[in-house]
Amino acid sequence: MPQGTLLYAQSGGVTAVINATAAAVMQAARTRRVRVLGAHDGILGALREDLIDTATLTPADLKALIHTPGGVFGSCRLKLKSLEEDREKYERLLGVLRAHDVRWFLYNGGNDSADTALKVSRLAEEFGYPLTCVGVPKTIDNDLAVTDCCPGFGSAAKYTAVSVRECALDVMAMAESSTKVFIYEAMGRHAGWLAAAAGLAGGGRNEAPHLILFPERVFDEADFLARVEATVRRVGHCVVVASEGIRDAQGRFVADAGGLKDAFGHVQLGGAASYLAARVQHALKLKTHWAMPDYLQRSARHIASRTDLEQAQAVGRAAVDCALNGQNGVMPVIVRDSDAPYRWHIDIAPLDRIANREKKLPGNFIRSDGYGITAAARRYLGPLIAGEAFPPYAADGLPTYVTPKLSAVARKLDRWEN
Amino acid sequence: MPQGTLLYAQSGGVTAVINATAAAVMQAARTRRVRVLGAHDGILGALREDLIDTATLTPADLKALIHTPGGVFGSCRLKLKSLEEDREKYERLLGVLRAHDVRWFLYNGGNDSADTALKVSRLAEEFGYPLTCVGVPKTIDNDLAVTDCCPGFGSAAKYTAVSVRECALDVMAMAESSTKVFIYEAMGRHAGWLAAAAGLAGGGRNEAPHLILFPERVFDEADFLARVEATVRRVGHCVVVASEGIRDAQGRFVADAGGLKDAFGHVQLGGAASYLAARVQHALKLKTHWAMPDYLQRSARHIASRTDLEQAQAVGRAAVDCALNGQNGVMPVIVRDSDAPYRWHIDIAPLDRIANREKKLPGNFIRSDGYGITAAARRYLGPLIAGEAFPPYAADGLPTYVTPKLSAVARKLDRWEN
Repeated sequence: MPQGTLLYAQSGGVTAVINATAAAVMQAARTRRVRVLGAHDGILGALREDLIDTATLTPADLKALIHTPGGVFGSCRLKLKSLEEDREKYERLLGVLRAHDVRWFLYNGGNDSADTALKVSRLAEEFGYPLTCVGVPKTIDNDLAVTDCCPGFGSAAKYTAVSVRECALDVMAMAESSTKVFIYEAMGRHAGWLAAAAGLAGGGRNEAPHLILFPERVFDEADFLARVEATVRRVGHCVVVASEGIRDAQGRFVADAGGLKDAFGHVQLGGAASYLAARVQHALKLKTHWAMPDYLQRSARHIASRTDLEQAQAVGRAAVDCALNGQNGVMPVIVRDSDAPYRWHIDIAPLDRIANREKKLPGNFIRSDGYGITAAARRYLGPLIAGEAFPPYAADGLPTYVTPKLSAVARKLDRWEN
Repeated sequence: MPQGTLLYAQSGGVTAVINATAAAVMQAARTRRVRVLGAHDGILGALREDLIDTATLTPADLKALIHTPGGVFGSCRLKLKSLEEDREKYERLLGVLRAHDVRWFLYNGGNDSADTALKVSRLAEEFGYPLTCVGVPKTIDNDLAVTDCCPGFGSAAKYTAVSVRECALDVMAMAESSTKVFIYEAMGRHAGWLAAAAGLAGGGRNEAPHLILFPERVFDEADFLARVEATVRRVGHCVVVASEGIRDAQGRFVADAGGLKDAFGHVQLGGAASYLAARVQHALKLKTHWAMPDYLQRSARHIASRTDLEQAQAVGRAAVDCALNGQNGVMPVIVRDSDAPYRWHIDIAPLDRIANREKKLPGNFIRSDGYGITAAARRYLGPLIAGEAFPPYAADGLPTYVTPKLSAVARKLDRWEN
């Protein structure tokens, strides 16, 4: 039985399957007889010495977490600055790790979290404390470097493709006398991965989504409106998928465009879709509906991808192996061996190749006209939404998601005030 | 084999299960060896003599329609006025029915459609043409009179309850350092049935949704904001479900409030949730996210309720029976025999008891504080979302929804111009 404690924390926006990673970490650590603490609300909990004793979670709890969305220990949005700038925080963090004999720290998150994990991994030599820090990938944005894809993305992508196919059937039925244009807003502030996944909902030029707006392309309103009009003339209706991150030629986010204000002069929390819908309705006089699923798309465990779920669990197990092997400053990543049949395996990559990079949609994934996806994109995206992994349902018709009771670890240090 | 043809048309907003009703109508009629035509785009198709020969649909097509959302023949939003005002249309309609030997007309829709069906049912004596007209219930709004519930509602309700439970887990995980308030906008312009269904996502006062805003209650902004603030103080976060139809004391829709305009002075296609989110963020300085699923909630066949699906099929079969029995001017309705165990049967009600009425949420379904649902509401709503009815999925990870090729019936009359 290895000496020491493993600390696991969740970071950034949660996903439909990050709890499956958490469960896999705890299951793997138990097999190795390693004690696991959870940090309450991500790195914040580590700083505050707000820790959770996972030993009180039963095997049934862990099993239920595999099909429960959200983040069981709580997550946070807090990016540590450099060692120089945030020295006080790092010293506090080390103090907490020391106090609880934490030798392994697993940080489960996206870009910012990889950066934090990288910084923490360097504490070991800086302060001479024997810590192994391992990043664990997670993000619905799919924008982490090195890894072929990110756990969380496949399920959000499946939600997106299924939802767009469904609402397209609705619009098709209504178009003759009612809604002719439908605009779906997909998450992705900087990279159009989820917008691209919507492309899986249909095939040819006349199948929805008819137009996809990527943040990787400059949004040209006149061209967009002309294409909407042409699509409605040709097909009878038009389904648009807009990435929340689309920007005009001046680099302004369309979601902020127009500086929407309410009667009180307050800036409205807009969205790209609501703006586009107003423009279509005004300029083209076509009845338009729009949807913004927001958090629904990243928490939709009910329509999770089996591929995604399996990868979420695999990175969790691999991270425990890395930690116990003393592989400091690394992250388990997903390597694709083949598209069809889809085959993948886990490899280990250094965090400094991952932190602070952002994987945009490759140019050859976007159709030459800029409004759709290519065959290469389909080959990449297709396997990631394959397979179903329905949660169990209770007799009341709802999935049996759990929020297990968490046991706080007794504090050993003074309270920390940020 | 009965003499004549049965015409089936879909009307109003489509649902996740209206095609299951269509399939049941065709299957039942085939068993009775009755020819079925479909009207393309609802009553419009009947007026335009734009008819579909359903004989070319294979048994496999009908089976696939049971799990396909949208409206296979197309729907429409067109309300016929009185016989006096729209006499020309009624005469045209009769002309088309006569030309194709239509003796039975099934109109599948909500309130407005029940009204149209009622008017058409009176044509028989008015023009001496032997027609039996039967309404078939459908609406996600659940606001039809007489019937205990409406096919389409249960699936939208299940989508709502599941989605709210999922995003609540997301917000709970993020609240400490990020989003504290989440607002979900549910359809229901006049009646809060779907907003109420969101209440099934949680139980006690501290479980999401913490606040539900019903169109049956006057929206009091100050009171609402105070409750959001109190909830965040007590629970750490607050999940709000707002019906799109909430109105202030002056009767103005909150969704239209503020008269949102973009930089060009165009009125924005707002929504209640985006308005409320801006108010919360401004007045309470709490980070707020919001979602507006719009058509996603009514086309989400992937999370359909089995109860709803069974009822959608049952009303279709019963409507064929009514028609062939010569029961003119009626609608098959759902009668609840017991809540637990849930038992129901189909009865037949006259359309004049259904048309132009609107079933609001009963007063005893809304908690006395106006922001939640009661045990009576749970008893009513619970069974309607019970049971799953997943569509089959292909290897590509998408449900196998179909858009069967439709065969037009040869025209016999001159073209009709409205």
